[in-house]
Amino acid sequence: MKLCSFSVKNSYPYYERLGALVGDDIVDLAASYRSYLRENTDVDQNRTVELANTLIPTDMTKFLEGGQYSMDAAKTAIEFSKESSQTNDFEKILYKIDEIKIHAPVKNPPTIRDFLSFEEHFENSLKASVAVNSSKGDQISLGGLVPKVWYERPIYYKSVASTIIGTEEECVWPSYSNVMDYELEFACVIGKRAENVSAAEASNYIAGYLIYNDFSARDTQLQEMEGRLGPAKGKDFCTAMGPFLVTPDEIENVYNLAMTARVNGEVWSEGNTSTMYRTFEDIIEYVSQSEPLVPGDILGSGTVGKGCGLELGKFLKDGDIVELEVEGLGVLRNQIRANGRG
Amino acid sequence: MKLCSFSVKNSYPYYERLGALVGDDIVDLAASYRSYLRENTDVDQNRTVELANTLIPTDMTKFLEGGQYSMDAAKTAIEFSKESSQTNDFEKILYKIDEIKIHAPVKNPPTIRDFLSFEEHFENSLKASVAVNSSKGDQISLGGLVPKVWYERPIYYKSVASTIIGTEEECVWPSYSNVMDYELEFACVIGKRAENVSAAEASNYIAGYLIYNDFSARDTQLQEMEGRLGPAKGKDFCTAMGPFLVTPDEIENVYNLAMTARVNGEVWSEGNTSTMYRTFEDIIEYVSQSEPLVPGDILGSGTVGKGCGLELGKFLKDGDIVELEVEGLGVLRNQIRANGRG
Repeated sequence: MKLCSFSVKNSYPYYERLGALVGDDIVDLAASYRSYLRENTDVDQNRTVELANTLIPTDMTKFLEGGQYSMDAAKTAIEFSKESSQTNDFEKILYKIDEIKIHAPVKNPPTIRDFLSFEEHFENSLKASVAVNSSKGDQISLGGLVPKVWYERPIYYKSVASTIIGTEEECVWPSYSNVMDYELEFACVIGKRAENVSAAEASNYIAGYLIYNDFSARDTQLQEMEGRLGPAKGKDFCTAMGPFLVTPDEIENVYNLAMTARVNGEVWSEGNTSTMYRTFEDIIEYVSQSEPLVPGDILGSGTVGKGCGLELGKFLKDGDIVELEVEGLGVLRNQIRANGRG
Repeated sequence: MKLCSFSVKNSYPYYERLGALVGDDIVDLAASYRSYLRENTDVDQNRTVELANTLIPTDMTKFLEGGQYSMDAAKTAIEFSKESSQTNDFEKILYKIDEIKIHAPVKNPPTIRDFLSFEEHFENSLKASVAVNSSKGDQISLGGLVPKVWYERPIYYKSVASTIIGTEEECVWPSYSNVMDYELEFACVIGKRAENVSAAEASNYIAGYLIYNDFSARDTQLQEMEGRLGPAKGKDFCTAMGPFLVTPDEIENVYNLAMTARVNGEVWSEGNTSTMYRTFEDIIEYVSQSEPLVPGDILGSGTVGKGCGLELGKFLKDGDIVELEVEGLGVLRNQIRANGRG
């Protein structure tokens, strides 16, 4: 399934809901499931709304918490939408893309962890950080070599949920920064509570994958990282994700997907998920030690080699349109809005 | 108000609820408000439950999202509990402490940010980190001097909500660590959405304060911080908070509170909130730039000077009982459980 969060344009009351891509259309999963219950089961019509809305709530994290019950309901809703007449006396089930707005698939992840899984990106960034800051007359640099610990264990920082945006939403350039960058990544989303899970079992805990753009204010990030506690204001102002949460059954090999970043239509970055030093399964084994991963948690891959401007020696400017494409996951498209800066 | 989250022992169905300390007892805020509505207003009894539960939900973050409406309802509930007979035909309003279990006040904070606000702690930790790792034959150290950036801006890392514990709950020693430590801190909790708020206005956005113990696996933390992205497995396995969320009106001067840590009854650390290099108001101004702080967000002060074992050259062992006391905020008491380690 290619799951999404969406709202219907010009509808009242406004609310976000869960959908899935069916052909070129988006099926309203709860609406389709309500119709399915009315038409194909003996559930009393007084109970269909509550049952459907419990199994397919409006929030993706809550949906994932429903486990196989919710996943099965979504599959049933998709199948029903294909069979149904697409119009019924009760409610609309299928929408054309231009009738709706797609939001970030997971709006309320309990935790966002973003890793550093691509060796080439880390090597290039360490070198490039010297240049960024020396051009401003600062003495700051991350030093030259990938630290030994990186080869020993997954390294990550945690981001915030309050600044997530979806595809076609604007990334607002923060007031305190002069150097804006994108990061070409993808992420997995946790589908069920995982604690002390082995890498061999870990794939059972992955609900799906999405494209992930960890927008970065490089000047701020490099300065604050000298404080030893990792990035914060340099990263937390905006993370773009989506457009879809793609379930594993849709992807033949998640570790062989082409990755592309375009800025204003021009290709800036090309890579492949095959160059990850560690798999998500390795990462889940590591992180889930003595600490639960929970439904909706997001684990970002980190930036693919040459997957950001820092590595390429060029940065974003006001109005730039950044498109990230990962094979099978869609295209994530965001414009930079600097309000006069950049 | 001294607000808390609690459950009633041996009750069925089990659920957590919000309370407040009144004398030596805990008032069930929603229950008291329901009784208040029945007895003192013209709200129909068919509507009292829904109205009370909406204004005083079971989750502190949702309660804070209710803003002044919810705060006023809680105050009314406390006043009503003092006037009422404490028993009524409907439900129990007041509980003795031994009838209940107190949980962490905020179980689902959207984001936890923990700062490094005490210069002495940072200085001592940088020196001590050399010793910890050299004793293990490693080359790792954080270097000797507080970096310049620390004086220029607040430095912080982000923790996770899934491993929060309350007072009297056990801190489980993670399997991968051999060096367990406590951190004597306090925190403020955000009460309303704050974006681009000045320090002068920031106190309006603080719902209250709580005691905060950022349990730390020092060996793991020092190793992973060499990876440049800040602490993760060294910190995220457990954070203790509570027992109460104390509203600002209860505290004369939040920047002059005695702080004490005891291990098995022996004083290990003593400090005062007056030694913070920056106030929470400064921190809110900084973090809220181009990024919203939202109700339930927790901002930890960081460790007071000499407020952890790393600075004192001694660490925790299996079965140790750690009590943190901050003047006016109560006592946060947790036992270490190592399952044979430590």
